[in-house]
Amino acid sequence: MISSQLIVVYLLFLLTASAEVSYASNDELPVVRNIRELNQDGETIPGISHITVAGALSHGFKEIEVWLETVAPGGHTPVHRHDCEEIFVVVKGSGTLYLASTTGSEFPGSPKEFPFSTNSTFHVPQNDAHQVWNTNRFEDLQYFVVISRPPMNLFVYEDWLTPHSAAVPVFPVMWDAKHYKSSSSASSDEL
Amino acid sequence: MISSQLIVVYLLFLLTASAEVSYASNDELPVVRNIRELNQDGETIPGISHITVAGALSHGFKEIEVWLETVAPGGHTPVHRHDCEEIFVVVKGSGTLYLASTTGSEFPGSPKEFPFSTNSTFHVPQNDAHQVWNTNRFEDLQYFVVISRPPMNLFVYEDWLTPHSAAVPVFPVMWDAKHYKSSSSASSDEL
Repeated sequence: MISSQLIVVYLLFLLTASAEVSYASNDELPVVRNIRELNQDGETIPGISHITVAGALSHGFKEIEVWLETVAPGGHTPVHRHDCEEIFVVVKGSGTLYLASTTGSEFPGSPKEFPFSTNSTFHVPQNDAHQVWNTNRFEDLQYFVVISRPPMNLFVYEDWLTPHSAAVPVFPVMWDAKHYKSSSSASSDEL
Repeated sequence: MISSQLIVVYLLFLLTASAEVSYASNDELPVVRNIRELNQDGETIPGISHITVAGALSHGFKEIEVWLETVAPGGHTPVHRHDCEEIFVVVKGSGTLYLASTTGSEFPGSPKEFPFSTNSTFHVPQNDAHQVWNTNRFEDLQYFVVISRPPMNLFVYEDWLTPHSAAVPVFPVMWDAKHYKSSSSASSDEL
């Protein structure tokens, strides 16, 4: 269910990719920027608002990305995995991380539950299937995410019983799609 | 001046390195931790308090590190450079980033000044010499730092006129020294 919603949103993004120019290198990026003035990338996953604070396709970083995400009460990411390192720093609200190892089984199965709250930091072991929920009924959940090896190669599961081999590859991720698209256009314009 | 203070602090750390066990891999690390309960690594640079939220030598991360640093009024980093990517997210206070390119000259020379404040994000171009000051006389400056390719290889300048070739290599950095030391001890114990 989530996976199909995600793919629809993803396809819509590809279709409506704007002509906004992406940064080829962060030499073009102002050194200091105000996070509160950065564009929200919309609800790219239902219930989640995403800002790329410092990104690869969007700003030219090569080795790290920093995101700021806000999850509405009851909102959650899809079950997914990726091979990069990922560290969360929670600045507001509370929630639960669901985590299942990807090794030694055909599908994630029952995940372990890790509750967290404001000032928590948590990490996702590389390639482990996981999902983050805002379990607070009244308050937004907000966290910074740091990943390595951008741009992210994402694999989305329908649910915890989806075989690892059936997880759907998503590249570029939804908030990177417009930058990826415009980079391709820029290349063809050079002919 | 700063450089010599830094080296003294660094040597003290090496001499007093504790027997604390470092994490060989982040499989041993609790998935969720409270940042407010993490140990301060002391004033490793005069006026700066450092917490490694997620580190390579301290926690087993391989591709990214996240730090939380608090700079007292008037406090500042030394002039330094490193070849990793570095992104700051300012959560409290205000200050100034001083930045000078390392290419095309024998020494950094006059740096450009970039004022910043709460909710600013800024990045340091790879290998550029830089220095961060808390220019607020009354309030602490606090920021998260994200770096790639940990552990950091640091080069410290006496001042902006120090030749690049005379910048002092510092490895491990001060807050990593105890973990580096205990890792070495652990290896010799295995003989």
